[in-house]
Amino acid sequence: MGSESNNLEFLKEIGLGSTNIGSFINGQWKANGSSVTSVNPSTNQTIATVTEATVEDYDEGLQACSEAAKTWMTIPAPKRGEIVRQIGDALRAKLDPLGRLVSLEMGKIVAEGIGEVQEIIDMCDYAVGLSRQLNGSIIPSERPDHMMFEVWNPLGIVGVITAFNFPCAVLGWNACIALVCGNCVVWKGAPTTPLITIAVGAIVQKTVTERFGKCLLELSGNNAIIVMDDADIKLAVRSIFFAAVGTAGQRCTTCRRLYLHESIYTNVLDQLAGLYKQVKIGNPLEKGTLVGPLHTRSSVENFKKGIAAIKSQACHGGKILTGGSVLESEGNFVQPTIVEISSDAAVVKEELFAPVLYVMKFQNLEEAIALNNSVPQGLSSSIFTQTPNTIFKWIGPRGSDCGIVNVNIPTNGAEIGGAFGGEKATGGGREAGSDSWKQYMRRSTWQVLV
Amino acid sequence: MGSESNNLEFLKEIGLGSTNIGSFINGQWKANGSSVTSVNPSTNQTIATVTEATVEDYDEGLQACSEAAKTWMTIPAPKRGEIVRQIGDALRAKLDPLGRLVSLEMGKIVAEGIGEVQEIIDMCDYAVGLSRQLNGSIIPSERPDHMMFEVWNPLGIVGVITAFNFPCAVLGWNACIALVCGNCVVWKGAPTTPLITIAVGAIVQKTVTERFGKCLLELSGNNAIIVMDDADIKLAVRSIFFAAVGTAGQRCTTCRRLYLHESIYTNVLDQLAGLYKQVKIGNPLEKGTLVGPLHTRSSVENFKKGIAAIKSQACHGGKILTGGSVLESEGNFVQPTIVEISSDAAVVKEELFAPVLYVMKFQNLEEAIALNNSVPQGLSSSIFTQTPNTIFKWIGPRGSDCGIVNVNIPTNGAEIGGAFGGEKATGGGREAGSDSWKQYMRRSTWQVLV
Amino acid sequence: MGSESNNLEFLKEIGLGSTNIGSFINGQWKANGSSVTSVNPSTNQTIATVTEATVEDYDEGLQACSEAAKTWMTIPAPKRGEIVRQIGDALRAKLDPLGRLVSLEMGKIVAEGIGEVQEIIDMCDYAVGLSRQLNGSIIPSERPDHMMFEVWNPLGIVGVITAFNFPCAVLGWNACIALVCGNCVVWKGAPTTPLITIAVGAIVQKTVTERFGKCLLELSGNNAIIVMDDADIKLAVRSIFFAAVGTAGQRCTTCRRLYLHESIYTNVLDQLAGLYKQVKIGNPLEKGTLVGPLHTRSSVENFKKGIAAIKSQACHGGKILTGGSVLESEGNFVQPTIVEISSDAAVVKEELFAPVLYVMKFQNLEEAIALNNSVPQGLSSSIFTQTPNTIFKWIGPRGSDCGIVNVNIPTNGAEIGGAFGGEKATGGGREAGSDSWKQYMRRSTWQVLV
Amino acid sequence: MGSESNNLEFLKEIGLGSTNIGSFINGQWKANGSSVTSVNPSTNQTIATVTEATVEDYDEGLQACSEAAKTWMTIPAPKRGEIVRQIGDALRAKLDPLGRLVSLEMGKIVAEGIGEVQEIIDMCDYAVGLSRQLNGSIIPSERPDHMMFEVWNPLGIVGVITAFNFPCAVLGWNACIALVCGNCVVWKGAPTTPLITIAVGAIVQKTVTERFGKCLLELSGNNAIIVMDDADIKLAVRSIFFAAVGTAGQRCTTCRRLYLHESIYTNVLDQLAGLYKQVKIGNPLEKGTLVGPLHTRSSVENFKKGIAAIKSQACHGGKILTGGSVLESEGNFVQPTIVEISSDAAVVKEELFAPVLYVMKFQNLEEAIALNNSVPQGLSSSIFTQTPNTIFKWIGPRGSDCGIVNVNIPTNGAEIGGAFGGEKATGGGREAGSDSWKQYMRRSTWQVLV
Repeated sequence: MGSESNNLEFLKEIGLGSTNIGSFINGQWKANGSSVTSVNPSTNQTIATVTEATVEDYDEGLQACSEAAKTWMTIPAPKRGEIVRQIGDALRAKLDPLGRLVSLEMGKIVAEGIGEVQEIIDMCDYAVGLSRQLNGSIIPSERPDHMMFEVWNPLGIVGVITAFNFPCAVLGWNACIALVCGNCVVWKGAPTTPLITIAVGAIVQKTVTERFGKCLLELSGNNAIIVMDDADIKLAVRSIFFAAVGTAGQRCTTCRRLYLHESIYTNVLDQLAGLYKQVKIGNPLEKGTLVGPLHTRSSVENFKKGIAAIKSQACHGGKILTGGSVLESEGNFVQPTIVEISSDAAVVKEELFAPVLYVMKFQNLEEAIALNNSVPQGLSSSIFTQTPNTIFKWIGPRGSDCGIVNVNIPTNGAEIGGAFGGEKATGGGREAGSDSWKQYMRRSTWQVLV
Repeated sequence: MGSESNNLEFLKEIGLGSTNIGSFINGQWKANGSSVTSVNPSTNQTIATVTEATVEDYDEGLQACSEAAKTWMTIPAPKRGEIVRQIGDALRAKLDPLGRLVSLEMGKIVAEGIGEVQEIIDMCDYAVGLSRQLNGSIIPSERPDHMMFEVWNPLGIVGVITAFNFPCAVLGWNACIALVCGNCVVWKGAPTTPLITIAVGAIVQKTVTERFGKCLLELSGNNAIIVMDDADIKLAVRSIFFAAVGTAGQRCTTCRRLYLHESIYTNVLDQLAGLYKQVKIGNPLEKGTLVGPLHTRSSVENFKKGIAAIKSQACHGGKILTGGSVLESEGNFVQPTIVEISSDAAVVKEELFAPVLYVMKFQNLEEAIALNNSVPQGLSSSIFTQTPNTIFKWIGPRGSDCGIVNVNIPTNGAEIGGAFGGEKATGGGREAGSDSWKQYMRRSTWQVLV
Repeated sequence: MGSESNNLEFLKEIGLGSTNIGSFINGQWKANGSSVTSVNPSTNQTIATVTEATVEDYDEGLQACSEAAKTWMTIPAPKRGEIVRQIGDALRAKLDPLGRLVSLEMGKIVAEGIGEVQEIIDMCDYAVGLSRQLNGSIIPSERPDHMMFEVWNPLGIVGVITAFNFPCAVLGWNACIALVCGNCVVWKGAPTTPLITIAVGAIVQKTVTERFGKCLLELSGNNAIIVMDDADIKLAVRSIFFAAVGTAGQRCTTCRRLYLHESIYTNVLDQLAGLYKQVKIGNPLEKGTLVGPLHTRSSVENFKKGIAAIKSQACHGGKILTGGSVLESEGNFVQPTIVEISSDAAVVKEELFAPVLYVMKFQNLEEAIALNNSVPQGLSSSIFTQTPNTIFKWIGPRGSDCGIVNVNIPTNGAEIGGAFGGEKATGGGREAGSDSWKQYMRRSTWQVLV
Repeated sequence: MGSESNNLEFLKEIGLGSTNIGSFINGQWKANGSSVTSVNPSTNQTIATVTEATVEDYDEGLQACSEAAKTWMTIPAPKRGEIVRQIGDALRAKLDPLGRLVSLEMGKIVAEGIGEVQEIIDMCDYAVGLSRQLNGSIIPSERPDHMMFEVWNPLGIVGVITAFNFPCAVLGWNACIALVCGNCVVWKGAPTTPLITIAVGAIVQKTVTERFGKCLLELSGNNAIIVMDDADIKLAVRSIFFAAVGTAGQRCTTCRRLYLHESIYTNVLDQLAGLYKQVKIGNPLEKGTLVGPLHTRSSVENFKKGIAAIKSQACHGGKILTGGSVLESEGNFVQPTIVEISSDAAVVKEELFAPVLYVMKFQNLEEAIALNNSVPQGLSSSIFTQTPNTIFKWIGPRGSDCGIVNVNIPTNGAEIGGAFGGEKATGGGREAGSDSWKQYMRRSTWQVLV
């Protein structure tokens, strides 16, 4: 395939060849393990091969990291920030080829791939300022001649394990903050995106192996959008469409459940089905493509199983309105799918990691909020409405129980300045902005007689 | 025993009789379970009996609590603060009898009993102000015409399980904050201090049964004090003494390990042994008593086992310098004990919940810090020194790894304005002041198109 | 007048007689100056007389205060908080007679008088919690082996000068915070409300004379309400009514300018005029009264002049729709007044401290915001609307330029948890909650080589 | 002079010629006023000439700025941060020539000149992160169904007037923060450093003329260092030396008063005099120079007058130990000077903006603090000591009353992460880090019925 050879050109720009070493240990690229293959999900052809690290390689790396941590934590935080700034500049210089690699290896469209690399760059810039603001406190003591302080110190080593769907942005959220906080970072990328791991690692250059001190989880989503009867329908339809089919339904913030007020149910569904029918599916690196392939063959198998399960729930109205099929091709392409179903169907409570949207009906706000909150996951949620009172109920103590509570914007699109994460089965941790940095440090209360 | 009958008088003041109902469910005192006995640890005689709740009672209570939570969370936080202020005033009016009950039933001296009730009162006052400061944030959005907020909402129901050694202060730390945050509180007191649970509960009046939404652990301590060669020795000796024998060694912040610089080792040890020999052991309600009984018969058995283990480590220098015996009496009295031992003895890594102090020698600051950090627990730690550079090393990234890092004050004596808790096996949670309130709420990032 | 003699009864409860000493200096009531008379604005009869302090008395008091400040600033902040808590409790015990005195001497209705005293009590409770949260910061240093801190220390002496319209709440906003911050407070009350100054001072007991270290101004308001075409008209009318006639138009947050969208102009104006015609004007201590007298004879003269000026602007449509007259009585009663006028009339830019409301028309939001912002003052402002987009524009960078920006609530009714104050000619200072406490302390950046 | 022609080379690099236009108005360089001359203080020869703006030019510029402000404030803050990041990168690319220009035109040594430009670059990086953290608050409302927010909005236009001694760093402190806060910035540089103003402005490119909305003053210093008897003398002497002679005594943080404990008085003074005798005075662009010229001829005249005044105070011990003369040369060179004087001499209270150090004796800490606080200015202050208790007294409520309170480091050397400024005659404002950004925005309390 001709465009494939072009791709190899940009790979060279970021230091990748047809065979590569998969881990960076103690200042050098080194790996003595077996060989894995990086596969293009649009064609299922090999992009390149990667040699993995052995357990012994890992041990050596961790030992080196532990030594480095002792020095790194004593460097002034703003100086650590300056180094993170330089990492950001190095990534900025390679933004385009890195973004294309994300698209090539993961399967998301190229605009999303570049956007993901941009997010690490933004995190670097953010972390530079943050390095001067990792503030402790001086708290008034109740005892005469005493002072009380709250001091933040580094944890030492922070491990980051990232999944295939955001092969580098999630690293950025964690590593940039962890580094300015004074920690060394050990990164374990997804096994199916080894090239991105190497290419970004060659710039970050501190990534070795997997080991956790403190556990910060960001797990599954199963996110809902609610459309009220007074919503701006045009805005809602466009938002739902991108939230449901973007990244071929493989974002943790993908919209999977859609609750429509009964009065606008048919209207929204008709418009949405219209968009689904026109969507361009294909090579994610090509201009105009909106939906790329699923990431792996086994994702396609999961999609098939999910569709079968939906069909088995016919008693709960499990009816496929559009899509539902795997496309005939060498790659992992499936049709974006809309399913009309009852809100009490079992499948609705589970997260199917593919572009499948369940649509359900409701009669009033209280019912819609209860439905939104009725699944074990709690990451993201959105409402479309024009009424202030509805907005404030939605964000209040009896509103959405998710970590992200959007209004008139889709479930995806979190910014780095906020804290990203959710409650319940989603894990409870928070990454990126706000006070998330506290999760990468340990706190001491320092009391002193003066 | 004459003084015992006097005690019964003050018990009436706080509504206790010879038989009592042990749980408050859905607005009334109600318990259909079996009967337990509250025992005076100074005499092992019965104070009173308490009827426990059954599982059915619990379920009823939890159901009622769940209903109450829906209303409580919609009351404005400052109004919730006003109710907590009234709880504080009600406790203030009963400070003396409640403090004496803590002393009678737990065994700590009466000044400590009253101090503990005072701490709930202080927490109430603190929570009143806090109820106007449970602030979320408005964070600049990177997108035109968007706003981003961070909103804090109540969790719903918060369960508090307290241990015998602080039968009510720990409730105060948790419940006062949890209540102003908009949660209902379910309290399960220690099985051996049922009367305190009832007496305080009669004022708080919201306590029912055990159930956790979020888990905030404050576990064991095994805290060390380091004395440098330049320390104010007189100040250090007095501080160590109270930190090691206070509450008969049953505080989570009790000093259990003492590291002395070799140049002042004999001097400090001599002075300390002098104080241990004079300490008055006896009825905790009597004036002049410094050390009361251990809380239960089984605590005495643990003490005996611990002393035997120490003696078995003679090869590590396990030598008892003073104390080491159980006193002849009806109550649970033991001798405060000093043990000279090597820092590599296995017993030093474990927390013996009794007034046993391990003393060890060191040569320089780095060694002392490494020893302080060498146990699995990480709650509290202190250093005595007059050198600024030593102080700043002690609180820095390569200093103490505990949650409380004191200078020239003992390991005990945390204030409510700070965050109480520690890292490693201590659990990682934080209670009381600073931003601990965030642990009693859930956070949502609210994004809106404007 | 019979009710007058009843009043004298409650005055005794708070320690007032027919003659009183007007200043509390160095621990005792003492004043060697001339005598002033406290007058009831409902009858213009004497309530009591007060002896004022001389310059020498003031100097003595200030000297004593300066000595006291040296001690007070070294008392731990939470202990200072405990003393403020006790002040709050002492005021709580006298809430009713103090509130009635405010009503009697200032002329506001009794519910407002009690509300004002309650506000000091709330501030006391708030300040208790705040006394544990006057936090400095530990900021990461860019230099190796350095630490950087931000420390807050007391100013020393803080002077508070209060005006007649809130004779005690404004003291509470300032004094409660200033005290827990470690300052001594010198209070100079309004010359026309000497009895309130004495009665509250007898409880606060630290008030002496006038002297400022730092200057925090809260000046005039001239506040506007905007009613959009999509507003809840019933809610808007009721809110405007109370905001315009409450405290006889003598609040700094009184609504003085009303901007109505042309489509609902007549409707709102008709409903409002209906309410104005029914309002009960009379003795503020009597049940059912909504509008009491103006505070002084000279206020009545200002009202007359203002009405004359309005009439002179007939070319700008200065037309009195309702009210406009002084009532025949011994007291200082005037009619609440609605004036239809063009927004370019000069009188609209000035604050007439009386119940006079200017009503104007507008066509769209941009015009309404421009009109709201077109006066020199910038304290409070409100909009009534049901559209989220309008709300967010109103609070954004090109929206209202006032310190208080309300939505669907009137211009009055600030809470102590927020920072009270405004920009432009209003002065720029902030009192009460949020980070206003920083205005009562001085900040030092502490840098240290470690 | 040969080196002079070399200088002209680097001036070209940053766009300067022998004649230059002095103001950038509405997108172009434009000035119709008279011509001023930029003079090299080492030679008093002309570097280049600059045409100044007329009042009409200013008015045009301000009008354009006002229009630009309306757009700039609606750009998302993180996007404004991205533009400030690019400004920082542009300055980084010209760091060396800009730093050399500062040295050439102002007269400070080249390392300081480069350091000053670096400080703007650091401020840019800091401001990028800050642009995502200009956080408002959501504050709990005391009223049911109400929400209360604290919103920060831009001021619009911010004027910055900088002095000759830090011709560009002070711009950086203010402009970087003001820009990300959403303001347009109007810069008026010092009249004697027009080339730096132009060169930096060519990169910032938003500078027009002078106009203030809010006033933030950073005025004079007159800063003291205290050396206790237990100080590290070597560290103290080196620190005093650089703090007193650096930038030829023309920093606002220059040490002008030195208080020595009587027991180490002679020792410190002897060591200090030794350093003064060796210091290399000369061309600031030359390697090895420590002290450059004073900035202008009139600075030299002020120095002469100051020395005469000192000599006239012989009754207060006004004795010149070393220095005291103007050097024979074409430039503005003077000798760094040490003066032994009594602490009650009048000249000590005034700031002589030249390298003149007053040395005085004290007996104990209380006396030293009182002396430190005895001048009208309150910017910076330092103590050298090894005792923790002394340190904590120094930073406490009865310690130094300055805005910067250093320990074991000199009076100069503030970091951008802290807030820079001081109390008393110094002005009270704060620039650079911490919460200084709030001075560049206006705050609104937003209350809403929900």
